[in-house]
Amino acid sequence: MPYRIGKYTLGLEMPPTVVSYASVGSKKEGEGPLKDDFDYIEMDSYFGEDTWEKAESRIQREAINRALEKGELDPSDIDYVFAGDLLNQCTSSSYGLRELGIPLFGLYGACSTMAESLSLASIFIDSRAAERCAAVTSSHFCSAERQFRFPLEYAGQRTPTSQWTVTGGGAVIIGSRKKAPYVRAVTTGTVEDYGIKDVNNMGAAMAPAASATIQRFFKDTGMKPDQFDMIVTGDLGYVGSGILLELLEKQGLDIHRQHKDCGLMIFDRESQPEVQAGGSGCGCSGSVLCGHILPKIQQGKLKEVLFIATGALMSTTSVQQGGTIPGIAHLVYLSSEAESGKLPKQEQEIHCSCGGRKGKG
Amino acid sequence: MPYRIGKYTLGLEMPPTVVSYASVGSKKEGEGPLKDDFDYIEMDSYFGEDTWEKAESRIQREAINRALEKGELDPSDIDYVFAGDLLNQCTSSSYGLRELGIPLFGLYGACSTMAESLSLASIFIDSRAAERCAAVTSSHFCSAERQFRFPLEYAGQRTPTSQWTVTGGGAVIIGSRKKAPYVRAVTTGTVEDYGIKDVNNMGAAMAPAASATIQRFFKDTGMKPDQFDMIVTGDLGYVGSGILLELLEKQGLDIHRQHKDCGLMIFDRESQPEVQAGGSGCGCSGSVLCGHILPKIQQGKLKEVLFIATGALMSTTSVQQGGTIPGIAHLVYLSSEAESGKLPKQEQEIHCSCGGRKGKG
Repeated sequence: MPYRIGKYTLGLEMPPTVVSYASVGSKKEGEGPLKDDFDYIEMDSYFGEDTWEKAESRIQREAINRALEKGELDPSDIDYVFAGDLLNQCTSSSYGLRELGIPLFGLYGACSTMAESLSLASIFIDSRAAERCAAVTSSHFCSAERQFRFPLEYAGQRTPTSQWTVTGGGAVIIGSRKKAPYVRAVTTGTVEDYGIKDVNNMGAAMAPAASATIQRFFKDTGMKPDQFDMIVTGDLGYVGSGILLELLEKQGLDIHRQHKDCGLMIFDRESQPEVQAGGSGCGCSGSVLCGHILPKIQQGKLKEVLFIATGALMSTTSVQQGGTIPGIAHLVYLSSEAESGKLPKQEQEIHCSCGGRKGKG
Repeated sequence: MPYRIGKYTLGLEMPPTVVSYASVGSKKEGEGPLKDDFDYIEMDSYFGEDTWEKAESRIQREAINRALEKGELDPSDIDYVFAGDLLNQCTSSSYGLRELGIPLFGLYGACSTMAESLSLASIFIDSRAAERCAAVTSSHFCSAERQFRFPLEYAGQRTPTSQWTVTGGGAVIIGSRKKAPYVRAVTTGTVEDYGIKDVNNMGAAMAPAASATIQRFFKDTGMKPDQFDMIVTGDLGYVGSGILLELLEKQGLDIHRQHKDCGLMIFDRESQPEVQAGGSGCGCSGSVLCGHILPKIQQGKLKEVLFIATGALMSTTSVQQGGTIPGIAHLVYLSSEAESGKLPKQEQEIHCSCGGRKGKG
C-alpha cells in the first residue's frame, strides 16, 4: 500500500514496475540526438490522417499499441488507462484511445501529464486497485501551434525563449512484475504562479513549479541529489533549466551535476536552431522517458532517476484576459532496484485491513 | 483496500465517507426547483470578477472553501484535490484552486468530472494513499457558450434538443470518518461512440456511455435496480434520458422507477422553457450532487444511490473536422450504510502487505 513520506510524497511499499513502454516521434525528432531511441518514427507529420489533430490521436494509439505489443499484452489486460494531452478538451486522448475499450481516467496536466499519469497508475498498482494500468500522452507541433499560437502559414518569427512542441508521445504500462524499472515514490505538485505573462517563455513559467516539487521531494525523503544518477525535468528548455538550477541553489540544493531536461535532450539546439530554447509538449517528456530513460534504467545504465514533468496551465483565453501563467510539476522516483535502502519506510504503526498489524518500519 | 468486482467495478473495502460538501449556483439555478438546496447562490453571473472565465474559477474556489468551512477543515488538511472543468486547458480549476496550495491531480472528463474526481478521491482514501481528498468541478453558461457555441450577443436560436449549461459547481471532501454518506463502489467508464454528430444533442451522444456503465455495474455486482432508491445521471436531459431508458430496456434492465437526471432536476422545463432539454455542464451534476443528493443520503431520506455523471468528449475543432462525439460515464455507488450486505465482498484470497492473509469474503 502507498504510504506517506512527509507532506507531499507517497512511498510505494511494493514498488510497481514498468512492464512495457513505447515511444513515438516524427521527422524532426528523428533528426535529433535521440533518433535511435524511438520505437517508431513517422516521417509524415499527418501520420496518414487528414488533420493534425487526428494525427495526434494516432500518436497515442501507436504508442499504447506498441507498448502492449512489446509487453505481449492485449488491451483487455489493462484495467485503466490514464491519459491526457494539450488539445482543447483533450481530444487526442479520447479519440485516440476510444477503440481500445479500456476504462479511461482522462487527465489534464498540460506537459506534466506523463508524470501525472505515471503517478496515478503507480498508486493504483501499489493499492491493488488494478493489476495493470497504462499511462499515455502526446503532443503535435502543428496542432499546438494552431491552437496556442498562430496558423503555421503565417510563419511568425519565434522568440529565443520559445520552445518547439514535440510531435510524439509515450505510453507506459505499469504492473507488479518484479523487474526494473521500479516506481519507488511520487511527489504531487501544487499550482505555482510567479506572475510570468509571456507565452513565449514557458520555461520561466514552469521552473518555479519544478523547483517547489523537487525541494519537497528532498525535504520529505531526506535524500540528497548525489544519490541520483539523473534528475530530469520535462520541458523547461534552456531558459527554464537555468532558472530552475538558480532557484534550487538559493535553497541550498545543487542538482547541477545530475540535471537534464527532456526538452534539451530531444533536439540539438546547434544543428536544429529553429527549436530555439528546446523541445516542449506532453510528448517531449513522454517520448524521452519511454525512448531513452526507461531503457537505460532497465539495462542498469541508470540506477536512480527523478523524473519531473512540468506543465504550464494557461489557455489562450486566460492569456488574452491578462492572466499570469501558473505551472505545475509532478515527480516520479524511478529506480533499477525495488529496495535501495535510501527511501524512508512506512513508519507509523497501521492496522491492515486483514486484521493484521504492521510494525514500525 | 479497493478490490475488484467483475471487470469494470472496484469495491471499496472500508467505504470512504463524504466528510463535507458544498454547492454553488447562480441566478437561473436559484430560480429552479432546487433553489433552496444550494449553499451559495450568486445573483451576479460575473461573481464579482471581470470575465466569465474568472467567474467560473471563483465558483470552484467558493465551492471548496465552503466545503472546507462546513467540515471545519483547512486547505492543509486535504492531501490531494482532483479537479477539472469544461474550459480549454481546464483553467477554471488551475486558476481557481491555485491559492490553496493543495497537490492537484488535474482531470478532464467533460461533464463526467464530478464522478471521475469522486472515484479517484474515494480510491485514494480506501488505499490509504491519503487521509482526505477533495473532488471539485464547475461550469458556467456564458464561458461555455462563448467557447463551444456562439457569442452570447449573437442570440442564436436554440434547438429543442439543446441543453443549458449550469452556472455552478460542487466540491466534495472525502475521508474516512465513519458516518454516511459512504462511497461503496465505483465503475469507471470507457469511451463510447455511437456516431452522433449533432453538437446540439449532447444527451444523445452521452446516453450510450451511461447505458454501458450502468449495465456493467449491474453485471459486475449482481445487484438489481430495485435495490436502489435513486439511479441519477448527470446531464442527459430530456432527450438523453429517454434514450438511456430505451437502451437499458433492450438489455432487460428497467430503471424507469429509480431514474432521475440532474439536468432535469435543476431546472423546471415548464417555467424555464429556455433551458430546452434541461441542464448540462460539469456544474450540473456537481451542484445537484452536493446540494440535493448528498444531504438526503446523510439525512437517511435516500439510502442507496447510483450517481452516474456523463461527459461528451468532443471539442469545437473535432466537430469542425467532422468527427463524431464520443461520450464517457463514470458511476459512483453512494450509500447511507457502510455495509448493506448487497455488494459482493472481496472473494479472492490475497496476501496483505503486513504478511497477514485475508480469507475468502
